[in-house]
Amino acid sequence: MLIKKPIKGTKDILPKEMRIREYIYNIILDSYKSFGFSQIETPILENIENLSSKQGGDNEKLIFKTLKRGEKLDLASAKDEEDLVDSGLRYDLTLPLARYYSNNSSNLNLPFKAIQIGNVFRAERPQKGRYRQFVQCDIDILGEEGNIAEIELINATCFALSRVFEDRKYILRINDRKILRAMALYAGFSEENLDKVFIILDKMDKISLDGVKAELLTLIQDEEKVEKYLSLFSNSASLVELKDILKAHIKEEEVESLFEIITSVKTSKIANFEIVFDPSLVRGMGYYTDTIFEISMEGFNGSVAGGGRYNKMISKFINNDCPACGFSIGFERIVNIFSENNYKIKNESLKKVYLYEKNIDKNILLDIIKKANEERKAGNIVSIVKMNKNKKFQKTQLEEEGYTEFVEIYKEKLR
Amino acid sequence: MLIKKPIKGTKDILPKEMRIREYIYNIILDSYKSFGFSQIETPILENIENLSSKQGGDNEKLIFKTLKRGEKLDLASAKDEEDLVDSGLRYDLTLPLARYYSNNSSNLNLPFKAIQIGNVFRAERPQKGRYRQFVQCDIDILGEEGNIAEIELINATCFALSRVFEDRKYILRINDRKILRAMALYAGFSEENLDKVFIILDKMDKISLDGVKAELLTLIQDEEKVEKYLSLFSNSASLVELKDILKAHIKEEEVESLFEIITSVKTSKIANFEIVFDPSLVRGMGYYTDTIFEISMEGFNGSVAGGGRYNKMISKFINNDCPACGFSIGFERIVNIFSENNYKIKNESLKKVYLYEKNIDKNILLDIIKKANEERKAGNIVSIVKMNKNKKFQKTQLEEEGYTEFVEIYKEKLR
Repeated sequence: MLIKKPIKGTKDILPKEMRIREYIYNIILDSYKSFGFSQIETPILENIENLSSKQGGDNEKLIFKTLKRGEKLDLASAKDEEDLVDSGLRYDLTLPLARYYSNNSSNLNLPFKAIQIGNVFRAERPQKGRYRQFVQCDIDILGEEGNIAEIELINATCFALSRVFEDRKYILRINDRKILRAMALYAGFSEENLDKVFIILDKMDKISLDGVKAELLTLIQDEEKVEKYLSLFSNSASLVELKDILKAHIKEEEVESLFEIITSVKTSKIANFEIVFDPSLVRGMGYYTDTIFEISMEGFNGSVAGGGRYNKMISKFINNDCPACGFSIGFERIVNIFSENNYKIKNESLKKVYLYEKNIDKNILLDIIKKANEERKAGNIVSIVKMNKNKKFQKTQLEEEGYTEFVEIYKEKLR
Repeated sequence: MLIKKPIKGTKDILPKEMRIREYIYNIILDSYKSFGFSQIETPILENIENLSSKQGGDNEKLIFKTLKRGEKLDLASAKDEEDLVDSGLRYDLTLPLARYYSNNSSNLNLPFKAIQIGNVFRAERPQKGRYRQFVQCDIDILGEEGNIAEIELINATCFALSRVFEDRKYILRINDRKILRAMALYAGFSEENLDKVFIILDKMDKISLDGVKAELLTLIQDEEKVEKYLSLFSNSASLVELKDILKAHIKEEEVESLFEIITSVKTSKIANFEIVFDPSLVRGMGYYTDTIFEISMEGFNGSVAGGGRYNKMISKFINNDCPACGFSIGFERIVNIFSENNYKIKNESLKKVYLYEKNIDKNILLDIIKKANEERKAGNIVSIVKMNKNKKFQKTQLEEEGYTEFVEIYKEKLR
């Protein structure tokens, strides 16, 4: 017997969930498109050298690697994994986009506004709501160094989310890696400790300010510096105040730039969301250089979307810097929230089904097919299926697939 | 420097091609849905045992295999490939569907009418128009043994194709594996030679009747039998004649069943296509048990869609037989024909772009954003981009992305 279960950490998607996924997918895609983004696609398989280039942080530990083929696979002389593999499954859509842009820049308009919706793969420990294959919905603007990139990405993402859940409020938290850095330097942390400080700070949500304090003290054993650092968060300094406090460590206009993004978004916003400066926002990925942002949904823990500016990634591929900024919606999270809270699909097409009794006369069935074909040509959704013994169960299941009109055809009645 | 090219045999899809792909994808999906099929999804990664179970014919030589991870990967003691891998990328959508049905049958309505549109992977030698990652568009009906499965699959597939290329004629060739078998047995071929005979017969298109004859003679060195066999093709016997000729080797009602499919399709057909019985149609895959079919497009070599009945595959996964029949459109082929013959996308949304001069006043830009957001909320597609130095080139490229309305905003004019 072959194995009927999907491989560990992946799942089969049933028609009922698929309807929800399609519905949400279309809303997100349409919203992105309404902002003038164009859909593109990168291959699911990526060069293993690119995937292991330290752009992916911890995700690089979770790569599904694919074996070399034919003569290139030399098992006898292989010393380690690297000798066996030449490619792997992409773990995000950002690294492939940087490669894509580098490869195709002569055919692309700048600024390049890309939509990527696709599967990514991470061999994570399976847990509820987390899968090893999952969909991300990314938009990115390449070749635009100005704040309009951030403003448009934020508006487009919030527009999409607000159309999926019309009754929900969103909170967008925003920060800048340069401010994050300036704050730590201001407190007296050394350059080489910065990454560790940010990893600790990133746990604020989970372990609260006290927990962060304890861990920072373990790191540097200097209560004064730690207190100085944490006072910036506990007093929740505004951006205007920070501009003054941090002036030895960051240019004024860099703080003003973030201020401008926030005010512009507040003035122009397209959907129901709040934008707040959050100096404790870190976002894990090492490739972010400037602005970073994250969206959470009122009533739910964790974030539903995240992104930021990564101005240095393209120069890993070509001898040119290219400003880049992106925002990614966690599709699976959205689908889960939608399903678990019984949100309803709107404006679905009407669906009709002809249910015919088993062993019906062939000519009668042919007439049904002809009729259904005319209805299909006219734009309707029409199914023809044999009636099962348990008709009630069958109809309930068809209703779950969205069928609303049932036409039952019996042998006797038609003769 | 990282590698900017996609891995061998795969490609980056540019916005221009993506527009065409989306357009065709939507036509095919809508056409399938109008016949009452429901979309489902199986994971891209599949158990290696399933992929190597002889259901995939030659495709099994082309599997991208994924390395075991963590402790399970024991390079030192690994003797061959099998010890290193636990999964691979699916090479088609049929085997995963059989697994899917076996795993989820208690949650599925019978007959189960599935749509699967997704990427499959084959490590083939790269050549023009052939990629190692490509999209297939499958519909399948599971749990329906009657001809209505074939009739609906054929009509749905032809409906989809005719809506992509409205001006083209299609030819659907149909045969039955049981007839194929009966013809060879009638001519005197032995059971053990049947597979080899069909592999030779399958080359008819390429090497013509004479070539087939020569190869068959090499196989059995019996001119009489070969002549007897080939006369069935050269005289192009009709199904009615064959019913009589082959009666020692096939049941009458089995021939009549194919006849009935052909007549029903002719009477009910939804699109412009011809259906013809072709006794030389083989179709490569070993899993077909009964009806097989293939569609070609007038003016183009090769087929654009193919499928058939595979009633035995599900019993490889569970202790139950389940009748199954499917039809698959070769998406990449369709996209190529569409692009290379300059077909046009119909009914596309209007797209507008605000082109603003560099260093424009921030408040003016903010006003543009506000205005665009109102237009987006009203359902329009609106982009805002900075004017490039070479404005003419920029506009040409935007036109290629489907923009038709250009609003140019200059510093001077607005002040």
